[in-house]
Amino acid sequence: MSNTVGVAVYGLGTVGSAAVEIMRSAGDGRFTLRHVVVRDKFRKRAIDCDPALITDDWCQPLHDPKVSLVVELMGGVDPACRVVRRALESGKHVVTANKALIATHGASLEAIADAYGVALRYEAAVGGAIPVIHTLRGTLKGNRITRIRGILNGTTNFMLTRMSADGLSFAEALREAQKKGFAEADPTADVSGLDTAQKLVILVRHAFGHWVPVECVERAGIEGVRPKEGEVFKLIAEAVLTDGSLRLRVGPQKLAPSDPMAHVNDENNAVLIEGDFAGSLTFIGRGAGALPTGSAVYDDIVAAVC
Amino acid sequence: MSNTVGVAVYGLGTVGSAAVEIMRSAGDGRFTLRHVVVRDKFRKRAIDCDPALITDDWCQPLHDPKVSLVVELMGGVDPACRVVRRALESGKHVVTANKALIATHGASLEAIADAYGVALRYEAAVGGAIPVIHTLRGTLKGNRITRIRGILNGTTNFMLTRMSADGLSFAEALREAQKKGFAEADPTADVSGLDTAQKLVILVRHAFGHWVPVECVERAGIEGVRPKEGEVFKLIAEAVLTDGSLRLRVGPQKLAPSDPMAHVNDENNAVLIEGDFAGSLTFIGRGAGALPTGSAVYDDIVAAVC
Repeated sequence: MSNTVGVAVYGLGTVGSAAVEIMRSAGDGRFTLRHVVVRDKFRKRAIDCDPALITDDWCQPLHDPKVSLVVELMGGVDPACRVVRRALESGKHVVTANKALIATHGASLEAIADAYGVALRYEAAVGGAIPVIHTLRGTLKGNRITRIRGILNGTTNFMLTRMSADGLSFAEALREAQKKGFAEADPTADVSGLDTAQKLVILVRHAFGHWVPVECVERAGIEGVRPKEGEVFKLIAEAVLTDGSLRLRVGPQKLAPSDPMAHVNDENNAVLIEGDFAGSLTFIGRGAGALPTGSAVYDDIVAAVC
Repeated sequence: MSNTVGVAVYGLGTVGSAAVEIMRSAGDGRFTLRHVVVRDKFRKRAIDCDPALITDDWCQPLHDPKVSLVVELMGGVDPACRVVRRALESGKHVVTANKALIATHGASLEAIADAYGVALRYEAAVGGAIPVIHTLRGTLKGNRITRIRGILNGTTNFMLTRMSADGLSFAEALREAQKKGFAEADPTADVSGLDTAQKLVILVRHAFGHWVPVECVERAGIEGVRPKEGEVFKLIAEAVLTDGSLRLRVGPQKLAPSDPMAHVNDENNAVLIEGDFAGSLTFIGRGAGALPTGSAVYDDIVAAVC
């Protein structure tokens, strides 16, 4: 086992459990799970995990020289930010799915990762299984990107689909999303467009080269949307470059049936990237769910150490 | 100029000219065009190119030690195959957009590239500007891919769109495609599905890990398609893994309006990849045209030398 990569996973919720399962089934012995950090180590888990690996001490894995990769799947800005910063400063690669963290502290965390010569990757933070950051990192090199447009929040897209297709009210659609596990008890971040704005900030970093504060995104939520029969509304994130200046906004839009995004339903996400040579590229895929997100986390794990 | 990468471009048609333009505008001095190989060196060119670089001797650039990258954009299997093989054997990286060449000789050319420690890249051979090979190389690592489905030929998709939307006959749609420069004087490879089958073989290599002869693809063309009003037909390529065996086919299919591929019109292409964890990922983009193809060629040029 001496040539395997030692991994510490922070958070064993649905995405954390999926990432551990995929690492086991696909890792081919390349990875050794050394620590799993949880808030409550006595809680019963759906996943079969050696109790000796489980700890509620978030510092301990960062001092283990056999850990070279930290996977942060706790969510929220604190204490995730401290964990990620300390991991990078300890010379460990970090993979995270945490859009709130990256949208808020991405610039400084990237600088720390650069200074310590380690990888910081967060594909799963935007668009679930859609490899949009991978695409923006490795392709469209000859292009000036002029526009990004997307459906980036699975919860609200599920709600808007049910409201349009089945005539549900906002409150009914929210209850159904909560029942299905798509929406949290406090759905504010999703329905207000904040979650979408955070993801747009991350895409802008890779499409246009710089970090923008989330506060610079004009933002409206879906609370007031009441689709009439046959109307399709989507919560659209847009970054448009015009005359050298970038306009960022998130809000509900009524889409014509000829718009390909009008057909992106349920918890699916979509991202359109427009380059001056390539034209429009559109990516559609699962924007939520443990396995699609875990799949993107695993790609980052492989890319970080290879 | 000593630290720039010396490049020889074979073929100065529309894609070759676009690739040279993008290399100039985006290359930032990283690349130096050293030779342009053409069939007729006295022909007038749309692109402004130093006449001293232009040659009709395809051997000469391969003997130039300052050339470390060969871009093959002549098309056709011969003499492209000899050029690419000799370039690889001379220790030069190769970028090509030639699907006929790669579908036929990809296995042996890859083996030569591996033996000589150089890159062989062909993103532009499939799906135009859609970075599908980049995606298959670098993502979905934890997934078993179970299905690929695509609209891979811009010419026939343009024709089928005009036949469905405007009631054109096959012959009328073909004439219009030829007038627009989408279809060649001899459109057999496009309308028979051969071009699509070649592209499917290349996708299968990256999705399922092995090369399959083009002859193993069940194939039907679009010659007999007569859409009734409101019907949408697409030339669909499919590779499906069932019980460990792979079925490959290309043929026209009538699509329901609820199928996202039904809305991929004109010269656009689409590729769907299905993984057991990620679910379905769909990519839509420009499948033809000099600049979208040149954009993909340029990404390969950058990736080959970086």
